[in-house]
Amino acid sequence: MLLGIDIGGTKVALGAADSSGDGQLLARSQHPAETRLGPDAMLERIIAEARPLLAKAGGRATAIGISCGGPLDRQRGVVLGPPNLPGWTSVPIVERLSSALGAPAALDNDANLAALGEQRFGAGRGYDDLLYLTISTGIGGGILQGGKLVHGLGGAAGELGHQTLDPRGPLCGCGNRGCLEALASGSAIARSAREAARSRASQATELMARANRDPQQLSARIVAEAAAAGDALALELWDRAMGWLGIGIANAITILAPQAVVLGGGMTSAGALLFEPIQAVVRERVRLVPVEKLVLLPAALRLDSPLRGALAMAAELA
Amino acid sequence: MLLGIDIGGTKVALGAADSSGDGQLLARSQHPAETRLGPDAMLERIIAEARPLLAKAGGRATAIGISCGGPLDRQRGVVLGPPNLPGWTSVPIVERLSSALGAPAALDNDANLAALGEQRFGAGRGYDDLLYLTISTGIGGGILQGGKLVHGLGGAAGELGHQTLDPRGPLCGCGNRGCLEALASGSAIARSAREAARSRASQATELMARANRDPQQLSARIVAEAAAAGDALALELWDRAMGWLGIGIANAITILAPQAVVLGGGMTSAGALLFEPIQAVVRERVRLVPVEKLVLLPAALRLDSPLRGALAMAAELA
Repeated sequence: MLLGIDIGGTKVALGAADSSGDGQLLARSQHPAETRLGPDAMLERIIAEARPLLAKAGGRATAIGISCGGPLDRQRGVVLGPPNLPGWTSVPIVERLSSALGAPAALDNDANLAALGEQRFGAGRGYDDLLYLTISTGIGGGILQGGKLVHGLGGAAGELGHQTLDPRGPLCGCGNRGCLEALASGSAIARSAREAARSRASQATELMARANRDPQQLSARIVAEAAAAGDALALELWDRAMGWLGIGIANAITILAPQAVVLGGGMTSAGALLFEPIQAVVRERVRLVPVEKLVLLPAALRLDSPLRGALAMAAELA
Repeated sequence: MLLGIDIGGTKVALGAADSSGDGQLLARSQHPAETRLGPDAMLERIIAEARPLLAKAGGRATAIGISCGGPLDRQRGVVLGPPNLPGWTSVPIVERLSSALGAPAALDNDANLAALGEQRFGAGRGYDDLLYLTISTGIGGGILQGGKLVHGLGGAAGELGHQTLDPRGPLCGCGNRGCLEALASGSAIARSAREAARSRASQATELMARANRDPQQLSARIVAEAAAAGDALALELWDRAMGWLGIGIANAITILAPQAVVLGGGMTSAGALLFEPIQAVVRERVRLVPVEKLVLLPAALRLDSPLRGALAMAAELA
């Protein structure tokens, strides 16, 4: 029996699948992350949840795949301090879960495992050379070549959100200026809406109404909804962000020439409002890769992409 | 005996190596490309040169590797019409050379084979995940993952020169705007010098003196030489181009996290004037890949990188 564990900042999900590697979930559970409790209590909870889950699925764990936000040391199996998991500094999670549950374990970051999950079981089935982007509060990514994850130096490959697209642009959380993530992530769109609410207040009435007149409530979701309803300022902010996303994705396509690009993460719930402008920029700017043969698809496994990827990784250990 | 052939717009080089795949050239010849003669006469000349070369090296060909500019269809072995080889539209070069020389043949583009040549026999030895850039009149590239070339959809992977870095920037030969190649290639630097000679004539006296007062003679080499001599306008133009090159390389590093980046092509003869600013931008802008572990190196095989790569490809056929 394979056990997959996806540890996020808001929820922890566990799934069990049989060793065939077909990725079908035989049992699944999830609980709130309760990050204030710190890693020890969180790991105890995970172990406590795993046992009945495995019993329900009908077996004991033969291999464990763990998904977590970076930074992490995949080879040593240590979580190094993800921004969404305060207190998780140098947690030897592979050793801890492996000894508690009596099976070998492997660790990788959530974007890589989401890419793997989508390629094995989701929208990317059948595409061995695949690029996955998660577009959410941040922008992360994973690359598969020949059906295998590309990890790169320091396990850092696939950080598509940290391409420089506007050299003098806004400061990014990574320390660089003008990264795709600083221009087009959910956080970047929310920030641009707050700035516009201040500097262009007369145009921001619709946005502010949707945010209950509280600029702190402005979010990418509100901008997307106001844009869908035809609000001019929201459309401007949304289109600008989609233009940058389109360029970032076009650049990655130009460099890698993948067969498929799969987009996941919360912002993709905007649907055509997100896919259509990205598609248009890709068609305009990618000239040397035959884009008519490339598929651009929404992720199919939604919030379970990293969990399913963790199970695919576990299958390789078993 | 392996035969390598590198067909460029100015010269054609041939090399023979033994089947061990050690890449040592046992014999080498080259002749001017004479592109005005067209593909049939050029291929006759190549075949005529190959026979004595192989005889000199002491054997007949067991496999042939062919390097040529793109676009080409690697899988069908057909050259599709490289800009530097007028008249080479749909030339089935693999079939032609294979039947004339009685050995299986394979074709790939010059940037990919230069990457392979450097990885096997040049500056990139020992680095399985390698990024190669050729910086010349254009900017091309090749990617190796796990010691193997990444070809991608339509064989188009590695076109690092066609990342969009300045969305409203100058028109590129590919049809897009603001590509790295349109901002920082030898042709782009020469164009920026000609523009400056017109619009800022009083600052361009040093550049124009070096170009014999003929704006058409302004070149990237002249800009580099004037910059090295401390000319303010030349330094400004050169630094701006190096800034874009640095960003383009930083972006590719952020996406791929290679172990090594090897730079080849005519412009790298500028030495530290090119490497130092690129290195500085990479250090500033790449935050998630451990750049202190990454090596940035000049190509070691110089003009023979694609020829040696063609021999490495032939070794896989033999």
